[in-house]
Amino acid sequence: MEKPANTVGQVKTEYFTFAEDDDEYLILDSGKRFGPVTVAYETYGTLNTEKDNAILLCHALSGDAHAAGYHSENDKKPGWWEDMVGPGKAFDTNKYFMICSNVLGGCVGTTGPASINPHTGKPYAMDFPVVTIGDMVKVQKKLMEHLGVQKLLAVSGGSMGGMQALEWALRYPDCVRSAIIIASTACLSAQSIAFDAVGRNAIISDPKWKGGNYYGGDVPAQGLSIARMIGHITYLSDRSMHEKFGRKLQSSEKLNFDFSSEFQVESYLDYQGTKFVERFDANTYLFVTKAMDYFDVPEYYGGGSLEKALDLIKARILILSFTSDWLFPPYQSEEMLDAFVQAGKDVSYVNIDSPYGHDAFLLEYELETRLIGTFIDATYNNEMFWEEKW
Amino acid sequence: MEKPANTVGQVKTEYFTFAEDDDEYLILDSGKRFGPVTVAYETYGTLNTEKDNAILLCHALSGDAHAAGYHSENDKKPGWWEDMVGPGKAFDTNKYFMICSNVLGGCVGTTGPASINPHTGKPYAMDFPVVTIGDMVKVQKKLMEHLGVQKLLAVSGGSMGGMQALEWALRYPDCVRSAIIIASTACLSAQSIAFDAVGRNAIISDPKWKGGNYYGGDVPAQGLSIARMIGHITYLSDRSMHEKFGRKLQSSEKLNFDFSSEFQVESYLDYQGTKFVERFDANTYLFVTKAMDYFDVPEYYGGGSLEKALDLIKARILILSFTSDWLFPPYQSEEMLDAFVQAGKDVSYVNIDSPYGHDAFLLEYELETRLIGTFIDATYNNEMFWEEKW
Repeated sequence: MEKPANTVGQVKTEYFTFAEDDDEYLILDSGKRFGPVTVAYETYGTLNTEKDNAILLCHALSGDAHAAGYHSENDKKPGWWEDMVGPGKAFDTNKYFMICSNVLGGCVGTTGPASINPHTGKPYAMDFPVVTIGDMVKVQKKLMEHLGVQKLLAVSGGSMGGMQALEWALRYPDCVRSAIIIASTACLSAQSIAFDAVGRNAIISDPKWKGGNYYGGDVPAQGLSIARMIGHITYLSDRSMHEKFGRKLQSSEKLNFDFSSEFQVESYLDYQGTKFVERFDANTYLFVTKAMDYFDVPEYYGGGSLEKALDLIKARILILSFTSDWLFPPYQSEEMLDAFVQAGKDVSYVNIDSPYGHDAFLLEYELETRLIGTFIDATYNNEMFWEEKW
Repeated sequence: MEKPANTVGQVKTEYFTFAEDDDEYLILDSGKRFGPVTVAYETYGTLNTEKDNAILLCHALSGDAHAAGYHSENDKKPGWWEDMVGPGKAFDTNKYFMICSNVLGGCVGTTGPASINPHTGKPYAMDFPVVTIGDMVKVQKKLMEHLGVQKLLAVSGGSMGGMQALEWALRYPDCVRSAIIIASTACLSAQSIAFDAVGRNAIISDPKWKGGNYYGGDVPAQGLSIARMIGHITYLSDRSMHEKFGRKLQSSEKLNFDFSSEFQVESYLDYQGTKFVERFDANTYLFVTKAMDYFDVPEYYGGGSLEKALDLIKARILILSFTSDWLFPPYQSEEMLDAFVQAGKDVSYVNIDSPYGHDAFLLEYELETRLIGTFIDATYNNEMFWEEKW
């Protein structure tokens, strides 16, 4: 298949395992010890000899390590951030070395609830520990050490990826030169927790969930599908749904007067639900949404004060939000901005005018490219930022 | 129990049955013939000898005929619109005669999917026909005839109740002197249809739903509960959820690191879901949300034009919306206002500043009382409105 010229091309997911010895186990935020951990990751571009051009890309809830390129000659679907990662793109592989890994608790190569627990020979299922965004970042730190990267030029992601970027800057302030936090938040609102909780409820209520022990049999497809449908509504905006679907019917001008999915928006949600079940593990959905609900920067790092928390950060910060994002609304980014400004940090913020809701972070790549590209180049090239922060 | 002074006091639900003969059957909007139909209703106040002081109150999705007062001496819970209906209240029973009935397809006394189909001796379940807001209004019209009311002084309701008020003014323009449309819309947005669809999906996916034939056995409690949780999130606002729950934990300062409902907002949703299952029929949830999704005034009455549709109306109109209502947002009320104005109708509109989201229509009763009370009195007392419109 003919691939576009500005892609990283064919790529391969690699694996790194650590904490095979009990004394190297990860200490989770819950206090539990956990290991071994295998991390699925991909890299694009080349790490220079100074090892100062590495950028970590962090994925959102349903993402994985495959951020860019194609997995085979005939692969039609590129990585999840293909629009942003590649030669000459926002994350420019001609200049920088990109790393992306699947999160702890995930289901695409990194140790998660579907992985075999070496102590039992069975999948962890609900014996998998409840992990935090901080725990995900600890695993990424191990990967950086494995790759010989002491300090990241940038760490970036959208949504839950943005939380990881912020967490990196907080947890390892001396290892991050810049963080790019997109369509994200320092903590979820009650409304977002509520949507997550209902999604988890749908999974747990599915009789096929069986306390999480469904591996090798039927998966809780209905529950996971409903969780995904709820999620999808929150990723779009009222306006984008109106423009995309409005009240259009699926197949005829006349109402069916039955319970078929006759509105186009219904059939879209059905499709999204079904497609998701094919590629995603229901237990991972539970663990990853829980990690997001627990994410609370003011509480964890600032004793309740966002400003006090963000004062720990040494990295340059770029925050991007989207006007129509109602899952992690601009006011949450503005609260971060205010706290960074109060703490006297090097912070930039753009609230991008977009109709696409939360999904905008994957769609508004032209403006993002200009903003992010400039920000990274400035961080890399400007002596001032080097001397001051390195 | 001591009751407040300004209540209608103890009331009783009454029942009226029509179409017991096949030739009196209701012709539904789907074209189907349906009967017999029993209507559960309550009345408060006195119909005057001129029979010109009758006001119909229309309930929302989960409401019923019990709008005001108490069902027994020891009843602690008044009707759903107690704050608005009674002596000296917005809907003043000292002056006016109030009627409220459970909708067709409902589960609190009016014929619905849980009712016995006289032709089979079994509950209709999914053999119940798909009905519309128009069909609900046709049933209310039969009730008005039964009560000897030829013309309503006002018809009013919030949310789905507002749709019925609008439908009355459209379907029976000569029988309605005024309509008060609160927190409502001339048609649902794609986003609202999507939320309804996911709720229905949750019910239908529950194995206990059994194609709707669960009567006499276990009800699809999990599915209905999830549908209700989704609904509840849409009835509140981000801000009201933040103020009510924020990120507060249920019982301790420490995170549990498990999947219990530890955030207060989670336990609130659990409670709302469970409570709803005790009082509401899952099949009714399917039929009533479907009726809302089908409601489409521009399409049904105006060949796609809202202005053309609303031009059919002779009633005076009062529209109320709430700034933080994102289920039926103010812009939908403003679209109605614009179309009414374009059509040269007698219309008033107030967008009430409130943090309570869609639920505000049940909570902002002080301001609603002033606006609605004045509007009804003016309609009743002003000779001009009589001569012109009667």
